[in-house]
Amino acid sequence: MTTVNDEDLSLSDDEIFAAHEGGKLGVDVTAPLSDPKSLSIAYTPGVAKVSLAIADDITMARRYTWAHRLVAVVSDGTAVLGLGDIGPAAALPVMEGKSALFKRFGGLDSIPLVLATTDVDEIVETLVRLRPSFGAVNLEDVAAPRCFELEARLIAALDCPVMHDDQHGTAVVLLAALRGAAAATGRRIGDLRVVVSGAGAAGVACANILLAAGVPDVTVLDSRGIVHTGRAGLNPIKAELATRTNPTGLTGDLGVALRGADVFVGLSSGTVNEEHVAGMAPDAIVFALSNPDPEIHPTLAGRYAAVVATGRSDFPNQINNVLAFPGIFRGALDAGATRITENMKLSAAAAIAAVAADDLATDRIVPSPLDPRVAPEVAAAVAAAAVSDGVIRTD
Amino acid sequence: MTTVNDEDLSLSDDEIFAAHEGGKLGVDVTAPLSDPKSLSIAYTPGVAKVSLAIADDITMARRYTWAHRLVAVVSDGTAVLGLGDIGPAAALPVMEGKSALFKRFGGLDSIPLVLATTDVDEIVETLVRLRPSFGAVNLEDVAAPRCFELEARLIAALDCPVMHDDQHGTAVVLLAALRGAAAATGRRIGDLRVVVSGAGAAGVACANILLAAGVPDVTVLDSRGIVHTGRAGLNPIKAELATRTNPTGLTGDLGVALRGADVFVGLSSGTVNEEHVAGMAPDAIVFALSNPDPEIHPTLAGRYAAVVATGRSDFPNQINNVLAFPGIFRGALDAGATRITENMKLSAAAAIAAVAADDLATDRIVPSPLDPRVAPEVAAAVAAAAVSDGVIRTD
Repeated sequence: MTTVNDEDLSLSDDEIFAAHEGGKLGVDVTAPLSDPKSLSIAYTPGVAKVSLAIADDITMARRYTWAHRLVAVVSDGTAVLGLGDIGPAAALPVMEGKSALFKRFGGLDSIPLVLATTDVDEIVETLVRLRPSFGAVNLEDVAAPRCFELEARLIAALDCPVMHDDQHGTAVVLLAALRGAAAATGRRIGDLRVVVSGAGAAGVACANILLAAGVPDVTVLDSRGIVHTGRAGLNPIKAELATRTNPTGLTGDLGVALRGADVFVGLSSGTVNEEHVAGMAPDAIVFALSNPDPEIHPTLAGRYAAVVATGRSDFPNQINNVLAFPGIFRGALDAGATRITENMKLSAAAAIAAVAADDLATDRIVPSPLDPRVAPEVAAAVAAAAVSDGVIRTD
Repeated sequence: MTTVNDEDLSLSDDEIFAAHEGGKLGVDVTAPLSDPKSLSIAYTPGVAKVSLAIADDITMARRYTWAHRLVAVVSDGTAVLGLGDIGPAAALPVMEGKSALFKRFGGLDSIPLVLATTDVDEIVETLVRLRPSFGAVNLEDVAAPRCFELEARLIAALDCPVMHDDQHGTAVVLLAALRGAAAATGRRIGDLRVVVSGAGAAGVACANILLAAGVPDVTVLDSRGIVHTGRAGLNPIKAELATRTNPTGLTGDLGVALRGADVFVGLSSGTVNEEHVAGMAPDAIVFALSNPDPEIHPTLAGRYAAVVATGRSDFPNQINNVLAFPGIFRGALDAGATRITENMKLSAAAAIAAVAADDLATDRIVPSPLDPRVAPEVAAAVAAAAVSDGVIRTD
């Protein structure tokens, strides 16, 4: 098997570190402060009138502060990229990058908040206290299974959109890509048998969105093998997932699961053997999404599979969350949504797939991450879904 | 007595609200994100190298993230301008204005964090948890006497500069202005008898900095009159202050305190009568700093006093915190200071006074808030003081 330890993107350390010198974000002042009058408007005494207007009618805060459209990019640094638990300070460059992408693709301002605690109660409490400061929460790089509880608790505690991107951003783009791959090979996703390798944040969310989208047969594996109802020692998340997946009751390893499967979704930082891919169904679809090293080199997988996708920009079919999260949050905030529903996520995936459909091929199953059409289309679809779901503010 | 309810700055509501539409801040991306390669540098996979470098050596976070130079502008909204306890959402326009001023005058990025709690323990806990996200804390518009405990607790809990600007920013500019006023009238501040009306955040800090600067006779009043050691019911802050002020043991009201005094410092939102100003010593100095309505109209005060200053931009001698805080935080962060010492504050005041000294007159005792020389001079003086005080990071 070919390994991908070589750096195909030819990024030098010098280039990378130079681009990060001083961080990647700055604050921009959108009100003039050039003369005594503008100073008196933006600060004292003028600002007092705006503060009083908000004190009289709290909904004015949405019009006259930046908070309503500000995304807090929140992490405790416990599951950063493929690096694991490297802590909040080391996670910050990733969160800054996320904020940069929110701005570049969604036109949204955001602030990275990295937390020196991994306690769910404390994180929820902290964000509840900060609630007047932001308008949405993008949870990022929090380890599973804690991330599931944390996201659920935050959704319950905050009256604003909250989404753990490693779960749902990944799931939305995966679903869009699977729609594209199925269409490019003349199938419907309702006819596919899908194997998801990885039962962490992304794996669980992907299994869930595939089931919600009508994929009839999804089998999930963790590091110990196929998740099934008869397996001892499953955590509550996996035990529940077992009841809704693996309809044929498979047990064993990835080789067993992949035999005759239509789709492999790799989200585990593991590897998949050439012979396992060779044993998949005809016109197999291989999504080897581990970063930076895909579970199998795309060139090798391409010998057997009809469609191959990775998380990397140096191969075709890059499955990158940036296709989803800027538009999802933009649409939710545009609509004044109080939460992000399953329907909003499914609509986001459909919108991404619709953009790809304009120029679909087995090596163009998703749009480029830089395609400027994507975020506005996703935002519009998500906003419309929020309205039809009735989750928008009425005050 | 003349009232100042008319809006001398001629700011219309339309102008003010239009300037605040959507808030006054945005996030600016300082790394390119225009093509696949720059995306791979600023986000995955390139950013992983930066995160790993920080995980290996935490001090790298100061070089490769924005946090090291980021000021958190923190408020619970309990003492906003002259408006009182209007809550965190209504305080946010002021905090955005503060962040705008940090950028405009200090070249510093900052984020407003408004808190839905007024509990000192909870605020400290929240900022300790957020510690990896920022490099300094500007505490703002927190009610006295809670602000004193909160600031002290934050200084103890955080290894970075923390300053409650309503206390120390005001005190620094006041001291600078008093140096200017004394010099413009041929006196030294060591010869002055000063009356401070107001024993809240600003009043206490002003009394303290005047004492630290060598003013021998400072008398403080609260809403019940002169603070003196014999007064029952003083809170601990005022009781302690009583032992270091009012050396002649005055008791009674503002009229008693001002009789023969050289300087009036109004920080109380109250009023001062014409006859009290008339009864001050020759060449009296009147700082009527309440905003937007000074304790006495400057034109009226000017009939008796040699120097009159206010907090307003439409009269001479505007005493505005913006002369101090951008340079203080910039200097502290430039030097890698872990705290802000008394000497750093005194140095800031001296730097402001030195700029004013170039063109000193009784109606030019402080530089204009828009004077571009001020913040760099203050920053340099504060950084030098941090070094000489030995409060800079050594790791």
